[in-house]
Amino acid sequence: MTGWIAVAGLGPGAEEMVTPQVAAALAEATDVVGYIPYVARVAPRPGLTLHPSDNRVELDRAAQALDMAAAGRQVVIVSSGDPGVFAMASALFEALEARPADCNADIRILPGITAMLAAAARAGAPLGHDFCAINLSDNLKPFAEVERRLRHAAQGGFAMAFYNPRSASRPHQFERVLGILREECEPDRLILFARGVSTPDEVLSTVTLAEATPEMADMRTVVIVGNAATRRVGRWLYTPRSVPG
Amino acid sequence: MTGWIAVAGLGPGAEEMVTPQVAAALAEATDVVGYIPYVARVAPRPGLTLHPSDNRVELDRAAQALDMAAAGRQVVIVSSGDPGVFAMASALFEALEARPADCNADIRILPGITAMLAAAARAGAPLGHDFCAINLSDNLKPFAEVERRLRHAAQGGFAMAFYNPRSASRPHQFERVLGILREECEPDRLILFARGVSTPDEVLSTVTLAEATPEMADMRTVVIVGNAATRRVGRWLYTPRSVPG
Repeated sequence: MTGWIAVAGLGPGAEEMVTPQVAAALAEATDVVGYIPYVARVAPRPGLTLHPSDNRVELDRAAQALDMAAAGRQVVIVSSGDPGVFAMASALFEALEARPADCNADIRILPGITAMLAAAARAGAPLGHDFCAINLSDNLKPFAEVERRLRHAAQGGFAMAFYNPRSASRPHQFERVLGILREECEPDRLILFARGVSTPDEVLSTVTLAEATPEMADMRTVVIVGNAATRRVGRWLYTPRSVPG
Repeated sequence: MTGWIAVAGLGPGAEEMVTPQVAAALAEATDVVGYIPYVARVAPRPGLTLHPSDNRVELDRAAQALDMAAAGRQVVIVSSGDPGVFAMASALFEALEARPADCNADIRILPGITAMLAAAARAGAPLGHDFCAINLSDNLKPFAEVERRLRHAAQGGFAMAFYNPRSASRPHQFERVLGILREECEPDRLILFARGVSTPDEVLSTVTLAEATPEMADMRTVVIVGNAATRRVGRWLYTPRSVPG
């Protein structure tokens, strides 16, 4: 048996958004590794070993997968959403950089429905024009860099999607983010808070920047800030395709 | 029979990347509308009427779908990739804005694997950190706005994904885009040209900004520009998760 690694995106939560490509990789796998709540989404079966691990051990998990593939195992690394968006694909290549002998390992990255696009679809089309995706966590970058990027995104007229907006260990940063947005954007700018999209816990809420408060976000929330033209039509939120000349 | 509209993303091309949610909507539909090559991806069957239409008639197509749903038809509007990313979802809401009587129509937006994420997955993880998605077409916005956004994206340290980089009717703009990037970024910045991802015509090519030429892109190409830290490991292209403090 030849070992391989597939880094697979499970989408936001609902089974109906898992691609057949990802389902096929899971069906062939001998081992699944990933963050505990993501591994919990994979159905156990005979011949499949589940290896759940904690958050913030991405490099260890990638090394474990490379070790198992080298030993002939067929390994799926599961991510929520898309593995290439603030998830395990980059961590795997970072681990690979430290192990040149494994550079010819059989690796596939299998895309998935990322949180911002699932949230946008539930709300309408708030990312219907140029947009940015920004990870608000300062675990791996200084907060000054987050702030710099926020200002460029706002000044450039981009809609914005925020991943990891707020956590128990970083309760105050999202308040700073809202403060920066208030300096750069008008008070009636529309903001979508989308939590647990496509799961039984799904809650969507659209407010103006003036109304937004830090506790509207947590680690299960993706936040979408519209551009200056983003508006409501009926129960929907959308960003027009046009920018006037 | 109660009419409805589903705006569905078919993904980049391969059947294995069409979500079960989208496949189910297509299986229930009485009518499919969309741009000719996207409608061509839907298998004909008894009871299903296909309505292919030309490019640049998005608002007419949306109005046609609203008319059919009001008459009790079950309509899928197909987009390539994700319907919320430079595709039909915004056009539908734009059409809806002009028809307040239809604001309670039964509408669902069904996400799909958008081109930049499919391309990123094939290449590795070039969008593994903060990134922007920019539509380079000036059909609906002035090119000066494209230029302004490019400079903010580059100065903000974002990786970038370009949709609609070049077409027969806009052969010279991508040359200007490369010129702007050369003013803002270092010559060894890595750029991925990904054409026809997941189709039999798939071609991926990674070059430096110094090596990039306009004819490397066409309308079937998505272009991904890394950030300053994007690098190769083996045959892969990836952007690290960290920004040094």
